[in-house]
Amino acid sequence: MANDRNPAPAPKGARPHIVIVGAGFGGLSAAKALSKADADITLIDRRNHHLFQPLLYQVATAALSPNQIASPIRAIVRRQKNIAVVLDEVVNVDRAARQVIMRDRAIAFDFLVLATGARHAYFGNDHWEKHAPGLKTLEDANAIREKILLAFERAELTPAGQDRNRALSFVIIGGGPTGVELAGAIAELSKRALACDFRHTRCTDPKVILIEAGARLLPSFSPAISDYVKRSLEKRGVEVRLGEAVTECRDRSVMIGETTIEADTIIWAAGVRASRAAEWLGADADRAGRTKVRENLSIDGDPAIFVIGDTANATGVNGKPIPGLAPAAKQQGAYVGRLISARLSGAPAPGPFRYMDFGSLATIGRNSAVVEYGGVKLTGFLAWLFWSAIHIYFLIGFRNRVVVTLDWLWSYVTLERGARLITESVSVHADGAKARPRLLKVAAE
Amino acid sequence: MANDRNPAPAPKGARPHIVIVGAGFGGLSAAKALSKADADITLIDRRNHHLFQPLLYQVATAALSPNQIASPIRAIVRRQKNIAVVLDEVVNVDRAARQVIMRDRAIAFDFLVLATGARHAYFGNDHWEKHAPGLKTLEDANAIREKILLAFERAELTPAGQDRNRALSFVIIGGGPTGVELAGAIAELSKRALACDFRHTRCTDPKVILIEAGARLLPSFSPAISDYVKRSLEKRGVEVRLGEAVTECRDRSVMIGETTIEADTIIWAAGVRASRAAEWLGADADRAGRTKVRENLSIDGDPAIFVIGDTANATGVNGKPIPGLAPAAKQQGAYVGRLISARLSGAPAPGPFRYMDFGSLATIGRNSAVVEYGGVKLTGFLAWLFWSAIHIYFLIGFRNRVVVTLDWLWSYVTLERGARLITESVSVHADGAKARPRLLKVAAE
Repeated sequence: MANDRNPAPAPKGARPHIVIVGAGFGGLSAAKALSKADADITLIDRRNHHLFQPLLYQVATAALSPNQIASPIRAIVRRQKNIAVVLDEVVNVDRAARQVIMRDRAIAFDFLVLATGARHAYFGNDHWEKHAPGLKTLEDANAIREKILLAFERAELTPAGQDRNRALSFVIIGGGPTGVELAGAIAELSKRALACDFRHTRCTDPKVILIEAGARLLPSFSPAISDYVKRSLEKRGVEVRLGEAVTECRDRSVMIGETTIEADTIIWAAGVRASRAAEWLGADADRAGRTKVRENLSIDGDPAIFVIGDTANATGVNGKPIPGLAPAAKQQGAYVGRLISARLSGAPAPGPFRYMDFGSLATIGRNSAVVEYGGVKLTGFLAWLFWSAIHIYFLIGFRNRVVVTLDWLWSYVTLERGARLITESVSVHADGAKARPRLLKVAAE
Repeated sequence: MANDRNPAPAPKGARPHIVIVGAGFGGLSAAKALSKADADITLIDRRNHHLFQPLLYQVATAALSPNQIASPIRAIVRRQKNIAVVLDEVVNVDRAARQVIMRDRAIAFDFLVLATGARHAYFGNDHWEKHAPGLKTLEDANAIREKILLAFERAELTPAGQDRNRALSFVIIGGGPTGVELAGAIAELSKRALACDFRHTRCTDPKVILIEAGARLLPSFSPAISDYVKRSLEKRGVEVRLGEAVTECRDRSVMIGETTIEADTIIWAAGVRASRAAEWLGADADRAGRTKVRENLSIDGDPAIFVIGDTANATGVNGKPIPGLAPAAKQQGAYVGRLISARLSGAPAPGPFRYMDFGSLATIGRNSAVVEYGGVKLTGFLAWLFWSAIHIYFLIGFRNRVVVTLDWLWSYVTLERGARLITESVSVHADGAKARPRLLKVAAE
């Protein structure tokens, strides 16, 4: 495909061109660190918005609406004049030609930063996805929210029995932070916010089951925290099953060995797989598909190509792997930005990337969270306040901070959920659903 | 289909059963007026939310997000103990058997209130819909919003020329309130909020064209107001074409006789058609499909069946047709609720329905609206303040009022649009789109 209208090549002596792929925490942070660089930056993403993924489970459970945790990328980088945003999907990298290949165009780079993240993965059981969807994007969150809300509508029209129990059963597979947060939030949503809106569903009817193959929840925390989280979830009515591996996901049921658990809603939170960055680059990857990077986050043999965030396998100066967390991605992005700036200006390059561990956070529900930083552990209400403050602070955009704060305060005071929309026109058809007495009679013919 | 688990019939002497179909302004208002009635009420809707339709165009133009103008029906009627909400789609009414038929169940009624609204209509040109979608539901609004935002992304990647002009052309067909509000809002969105986020699109590039077949805009207002609105839109850069009937909608173009207007985004705001209520009832309907009702809003020959709101053709006591507006639907709902209550309690029935005309409102954009009440006309900033206050006041739910007020204040101060999300993963592919110089080079192969 020749570009016949603008055939001029890049002028000699043009400013160097930095391409950043992915506008998540890592990519945006790299872009920001390059704001003063004498270079042209192109930021490519296949979506028009940056997503604050740590709060995605709140969209899936109707506490927040999508636009509260997402901001248009163009609006975020508006004031940075050396950057252009392109909405397109990268499909490959041509290292020899120094080009990033998109679906039907390509773009040359002098420096390349890949911050393309990860997606949930089923490790060889991809056919499970349709029965047990995961949670990585706004569409995932919308789909899960509608599924949960529709399950309640269906239960309301179904007389007591197996069908009704299955409609009110919610299984979450995976006891990491996402699984724990989802289980806690679904328990709250169903037992508090929703139950009083239905005439035939009592708050004790819904069943939330969290299945973890390992010996404890939140394995990245200390065992004492794991125990606290388990007790805390159980107090909220969540059934926690540890050391039980799911052997099969089917339509509305999950197998654990010979045991079958029936549930209309099954959510996968058990694993992620990195983006295809390593494949594009022909670089070494680990078992989760993450590109192995050097101590300055560039790839072996190509000092102008960097891989950061969830799609990178980096090792800290202490020899420990750097975790797939938002703060790590941000620090990596900022580091790479500084490194490229230094190279462009001829300043001495910074030393190897050093990860600052600010500890781990997870929330269980209203008034309850866990925080661990070095030897310091915090649980319960104080941890929850800390968690809320941190998350609001890091939400991009002042406006979102204000609106989310108000929404949380509102939910806290009223136990109400503001974002309970099913946007598709739907009719609730449980298989074998029987009509309710009195209110619903079956047509004669 | 027998109900084998709950075979008991309705007990003798059970309370009368009132079925309301549709939880729009009319249906909700009827339900509320029946809150003290000694009866069981079932409120059926095929969506789980009430939609504040007058602000739908703001969702379509990224000023508000869907959950700000929609509330779950169950939450709205939560405190009214005599009401049950059913999420299902009504497909017919069996008048002889006194039953409302849903997709795979039926429900008996003693009183029936149909408040099933209207949908946009193409008057025999249904194939135009895919080229020129209308705006009646949240999905419609989401689809239009994504279309507009994607057009800008596409234009940014397309060099100057016909393709780029077409991407930045927005045609609205129909000069009623919806068309005027959409044209004003799209002009603002594109010329103010969006233009500064793009590097290659200037605020004078987008073209907004409003086409009206009649001699003036907003025909339900006085001619002086119509003139004001036209001038006001033109000042905002909208091209207003009066007395020009669209003869064909095609893929990315509109025909007016022999003239072709090219535009990637075409929106239909030229007409509505009533729901199928008249068909279900076998009742008389007018040309727009609206059920003809008597002066007490019941249908001919069946005093227990009422039709209200946009799907009813009612005549005021002054002989004038009652307009298809939210206040009319609300008044009709309240009237029918009172009438049924009176019949149930044996009180004297109220006289014929009297429509209280509170005037007409329409907004053109920031700082500009029109209000007409009897001989009183208000235009400009004051009318806009009045319009804002009224709309916030009538938004159902205190919470939405607060959030919408904040959002509007925010947009007003910053000219920012908060709800600019494209939720689908997309790639922008204009036909024949050419790469930009320098930033975008086309791959060698």
